[in-house]
Amino acid sequence: MKWIKIKKLTDQLVFDYRIHPIVKDHCSCRLPSNREIKEIIKLSKEVLFPGFFSKRNVSETGHWLSTFLVTKRLHRKLKREISLALLYLADESRDKNIAKKSCTLCVDFIASLPQIRAQLHTDLEAHYLGDPAAFNRDQIIVSYPGFYAIVIYRMAHRLHQLGVPLIPRMMAEFAHRETGIDINPGAEIGDYFFIDHGTGVVIGETAVVGNHVKIYQGVTLGALSTRGGQFLKGVKRHPTIGDNVTIYAGASILGGSTVVGDNATIGSNAFLTESVPAGARVSIAKQEQTIRIASERSSQNVV
Amino acid sequence: MKWIKIKKLTDQLVFDYRIHPIVKDHCSCRLPSNREIKEIIKLSKEVLFPGFFSKRNVSETGHWLSTFLVTKRLHRKLKREISLALLYLADESRDKNIAKKSCTLCVDFIASLPQIRAQLHTDLEAHYLGDPAAFNRDQIIVSYPGFYAIVIYRMAHRLHQLGVPLIPRMMAEFAHRETGIDINPGAEIGDYFFIDHGTGVVIGETAVVGNHVKIYQGVTLGALSTRGGQFLKGVKRHPTIGDNVTIYAGASILGGSTVVGDNATIGSNAFLTESVPAGARVSIAKQEQTIRIASERSSQNVV
Amino acid sequence: MKWIKIKKLTDQLVFDYRIHPIVKDHCSCRLPSNREIKEIIKLSKEVLFPGFFSKRNVSETGHWLSTFLVTKRLHRKLKREISLALLYLADESRDKNIAKKSCTLCVDFIASLPQIRAQLHTDLEAHYLGDPAAFNRDQIIVSYPGFYAIVIYRMAHRLHQLGVPLIPRMMAEFAHRETGIDINPGAEIGDYFFIDHGTGVVIGETAVVGNHVKIYQGVTLGALSTRGGQFLKGVKRHPTIGDNVTIYAGASILGGSTVVGDNATIGSNAFLTESVPAGARVSIAKQEQTIRIASERSSQNVV
Repeated sequence: MKWIKIKKLTDQLVFDYRIHPIVKDHCSCRLPSNREIKEIIKLSKEVLFPGFFSKRNVSETGHWLSTFLVTKRLHRKLKREISLALLYLADESRDKNIAKKSCTLCVDFIASLPQIRAQLHTDLEAHYLGDPAAFNRDQIIVSYPGFYAIVIYRMAHRLHQLGVPLIPRMMAEFAHRETGIDINPGAEIGDYFFIDHGTGVVIGETAVVGNHVKIYQGVTLGALSTRGGQFLKGVKRHPTIGDNVTIYAGASILGGSTVVGDNATIGSNAFLTESVPAGARVSIAKQEQTIRIASERSSQNVV
Repeated sequence: MKWIKIKKLTDQLVFDYRIHPIVKDHCSCRLPSNREIKEIIKLSKEVLFPGFFSKRNVSETGHWLSTFLVTKRLHRKLKREISLALLYLADESRDKNIAKKSCTLCVDFIASLPQIRAQLHTDLEAHYLGDPAAFNRDQIIVSYPGFYAIVIYRMAHRLHQLGVPLIPRMMAEFAHRETGIDINPGAEIGDYFFIDHGTGVVIGETAVVGNHVKIYQGVTLGALSTRGGQFLKGVKRHPTIGDNVTIYAGASILGGSTVVGDNATIGSNAFLTESVPAGARVSIAKQEQTIRIASERSSQNVV
Repeated sequence: MKWIKIKKLTDQLVFDYRIHPIVKDHCSCRLPSNREIKEIIKLSKEVLFPGFFSKRNVSETGHWLSTFLVTKRLHRKLKREISLALLYLADESRDKNIAKKSCTLCVDFIASLPQIRAQLHTDLEAHYLGDPAAFNRDQIIVSYPGFYAIVIYRMAHRLHQLGVPLIPRMMAEFAHRETGIDINPGAEIGDYFFIDHGTGVVIGETAVVGNHVKIYQGVTLGALSTRGGQFLKGVKRHPTIGDNVTIYAGASILGGSTVVGDNATIGSNAFLTESVPAGARVSIAKQEQTIRIASERSSQNVV
């Protein structure tokens, strides 16, 4: 009797799939899988920081063979997911090129990992020098969510530059899930980038961020309005941040033509929709806060 | 000697369990397990979006047999967890009814998945049309946290309507962990619901949300005060939102009698504890912000 | 040909490792692993709440043997990670002491679990009494993120007190990833602590929090400025919160000399950088909000 019920449920579902195919714009291919993207991120982290995320000793990181084995696995997995992503978007006819193209893209990505390492080295310095609670640099690599999100962003951004579809955003959303930090792979972010705590940070697709920028939890570099929806595709909707800018917790900087000049400091909870010049210190006027002392039944205003 | 230490530690712990049973209100049954709830969500997603989360090609989604096998697994796992949840709350005597009841509830849930698919289809449209950064609809299904949270909410809400205890909230907290979006399964949410970025969104148990509503990161639909604690159980404590309402990042709308009329727009960081009529555009007055230019040692106020 | 490419990529990477060792201050040892820390948290939770996170019935929790087996596994894993953490920081010469010291630290930690259970019991009461949406206490243990973060904080804080390096912060960041709640293990937090929803909560390293404190999502107990970076190490940079204080969503309380007196209530989005006396009720003055009704093309100011 149980089987009859499950058979009936299946009939209903299959009927529904035919009547309401929820999505129409896919071809007949497999999509890249979130599980494999997670594996690829893990393997890339092993390549970027040898010895930190494996059971190998840190001192063995120069070993050629262990590097070779990790790189080989990364190459195999990444190439497969890239080819799925390319096939997914391709016309049936060009399948042959795709095998070759996904191999080239994969090799290009791995070949740029030393460059990404160099940039991450600057981010690591920014995290260590900026946070009094940081014990040492290794701890930042192993456990800081801000640094973790930046590692994934720099890889996703590289794949985005190489023109790989789907996968960069899947990586970014993996980082978002893990850290609460949502950096669109399209954003351009300079060296020595520091995100502290990070939960709730949003950095939009067309944001541009300079060098030596510090960002705290809850900061949004966003769009003014997305009422235009898909019509706004490709338009610069997110702000430009200069060098040496610090943006404190909860501040929102919105709009594609909003520019924050070099060396500016944006205070907690500030709400900027217009540009500010270099060196500016923006802070919201102290809000009028009421403090009532319950025990005295009196009330006083403080600024 | 190591064994003696562990034996001693165990003695201390078992002694402590007897003296201080941390929880008193459970019966002698197993609780539903978070790991199984995660599996159930995964299987349900395969049923809702065939081909998107499995290793099957998307084109094979009409296949009767593969649907049957997934449905069968979902049925088996969900039925077991529902019966654990029911047993957990039941008097010992009614065990027999529970086996039957959990089967009925499980079948009712699976039978309503086509209806949930139809509703999710509207949410998908809202996500695609609302976000210029969305590449296509498939990407939203595969990687958007807002959509993911809504998928889980709609399933949890259905189980909540069916009267299944414990499991809906466990599902909601799974979504919360993964996305930073906390939607209580008791909330009533209409079609074409769109959550962008989403980290920090809180939607309370007695909130009511209309159709075509857009919500951004950090929005709270919450209670005014929970000082009443358990005495407030069942009381409407969260707001009612009309159709076509947009609520921008960081806004808080609080209180059970607060109603936001149709077509209203609530600006970033607004703090509403009273109703606003249909068509209203609420925005906080531009805060006085101080901009000091460090290099010039001067200071100017801007509104 | 594929092999030649991977060989070449490996050569480049190994060359880069030699030229740019990304981190210089580690010794030649393995770091503790995030995966093992996750296991240790899981095992500790089984010891703290027997029957809640295992496949055992809750009623079997008094069983000596099952407790012994879990404790043994916890001891083995924790001891290994502690010794990795100690070795990592040690001079080569003192290796022998490390085996002994890590065993002692591990036993000390497990021996203090009954004490942690007693404190968590008070937190559980605070969660149940404070949240009208809480079905019962068991549900809180199984699925509430605020309670989960506090469980991990209390364990991490204990290890921090014992002087174990690296691992407490790794535990805290695991909790942060899972819940969006970032509590530094160095913070001192009293009994009956309640965090509702929790996403975006940040509690800094030198914060002190009294008993019966309630905190909502997005609350920061932070530093005023971290421009001093590593020079501020050890300085009290985060606020002190008295007993019976409630801090509503989005409020920020900053600075090492900021003291919030007993029984105070801090309203939503308040921004405190100065002390307030006992019994104070701080609320931001209602912001001027503009409500325009689109249909009438008129505009009105409301306070």
